[in-house]
Amino acid sequence: MRIARFSIDGNVAFGAVEGDKPDELVVDIIKGSPYVADFELSGVKVPLSKVRLLPPVIGHKIVAFGRNYAEHAKELGSDVPDVPFAFFKPATSMIGSGDDIAYPSFSEEVHHEAELAVVIGRMCREVPRERVKDVIFGYTCANDVTARDIQRREKQWARAKGFDSACPLGPWVETDIDLAAANDLTIQCTVNGQQRQLGRTSEMVHSIEDLIVNITEAMTLLPGDVILTGTPAGVGPLNVGDEVAVTIEGIGTLTNKVIKRG
Amino acid sequence: MRIARFSIDGNVAFGAVEGDKPDELVVDIIKGSPYVADFELSGVKVPLSKVRLLPPVIGHKIVAFGRNYAEHAKELGSDVPDVPFAFFKPATSMIGSGDDIAYPSFSEEVHHEAELAVVIGRMCREVPRERVKDVIFGYTCANDVTARDIQRREKQWARAKGFDSACPLGPWVETDIDLAAANDLTIQCTVNGQQRQLGRTSEMVHSIEDLIVNITEAMTLLPGDVILTGTPAGVGPLNVGDEVAVTIEGIGTLTNKVIKRG
Repeated sequence: MRIARFSIDGNVAFGAVEGDKPDELVVDIIKGSPYVADFELSGVKVPLSKVRLLPPVIGHKIVAFGRNYAEHAKELGSDVPDVPFAFFKPATSMIGSGDDIAYPSFSEEVHHEAELAVVIGRMCREVPRERVKDVIFGYTCANDVTARDIQRREKQWARAKGFDSACPLGPWVETDIDLAAANDLTIQCTVNGQQRQLGRTSEMVHSIEDLIVNITEAMTLLPGDVILTGTPAGVGPLNVGDEVAVTIEGIGTLTNKVIKRG
Repeated sequence: MRIARFSIDGNVAFGAVEGDKPDELVVDIIKGSPYVADFELSGVKVPLSKVRLLPPVIGHKIVAFGRNYAEHAKELGSDVPDVPFAFFKPATSMIGSGDDIAYPSFSEEVHHEAELAVVIGRMCREVPRERVKDVIFGYTCANDVTARDIQRREKQWARAKGFDSACPLGPWVETDIDLAAANDLTIQCTVNGQQRQLGRTSEMVHSIEDLIVNITEAMTLLPGDVILTGTPAGVGPLNVGDEVAVTIEGIGTLTNKVIKRG
């Protein structure tokens, strides 16, 4: 199931996206939260084209892993770390598909980073490897938008990767991908239709299981928390006016325009 | 005014702490949120000794600045950065005064770091220096508990500083300190009654104004967001069974015991 979160006429809801043809997709509104077992569809359906997509989660935290694709570490002149390392992006950085990335005034080098995002479905801590599949709600596309100049200058990355609109997520959460399949999906990033990044999640240094074991060793994850799993090689600059799209096999396409911050 | 958040008999509320003698403090329950202008006190008063203090904010994000006291940077063998740098601690790491710090299984070197915490009162971004005072709700005590061994090993500090219970905050938010005074308060940390850290916020490399200008250049802050302003020299290990207390002049004392994680 593809679970979107959206607003229409000032109301916000979750919904199940139905249909195959991009122009004919509809959203069946979910009664309440999709994070409870046996949630119900209302049967009230709205054309997807009539809604504004929001980030598909109500964000508590976003945990992102660095340098999880060897070729990407290399292109930045960095080592591949022996152990995974994580940083946070704040909930205030989330935007949905179709929202604009606002180019911040304090950077002159903003980059795209296409990533597979894992959405957590259950409160959990110290998750054993064999239980990882049970805590995953689904998968979505993410763009770990990064002010590369600031990242080089500041030892910790709160500003470089945490500015408003630095975390596009969407278009929806796909819940019908199993864990083995999620570790081997094509991930692509285009800018103005031209391919910039192309990789497979099978190239990740640390698998989804590794990452969730690693982070939950330290902290509790909550339903709606998001794990960003790292970006393949090919990162590069975004400019005002660009349209950047992240497409992941079996999930969909996350599209955002870059505007000047108002 | 000293604004606490607490639970009693399963109910959670904000309240104004009244009284001078530690044993005779009472909490006047606030109707709704203290973040709205002209909030009302209910007149219903409960002895402070009867409530369980919670973190005094409903946490959205915690932005913490590193190496903001030169002597502390030196004791860790680090340079003082030319520009401030920030990292996040997650809302799941917050605990209140009287709650336990659970020593995590993945570290063998957990340190205390006493810090002045600034609590934000208004949604804000790109705050000019002269408006910083208008976005501050008040001040509280924080302990930026850190797994020092993990911090050394992992390039970004999500696990080292973001594990569950790594952010004691409290006992309450003092709203009657002005910005000039906040930049010159005594800050102290004791472990089992013995002094470990003693400094003044006037030793901060970057003032509260600097830090808020810096972070809001990048991102929106929300009411209840917390800024940790760095720790003075004297950090050191905590062990299971220790009682650690952070006292800041004009605010109060934040006390937590260290237990083994269950």
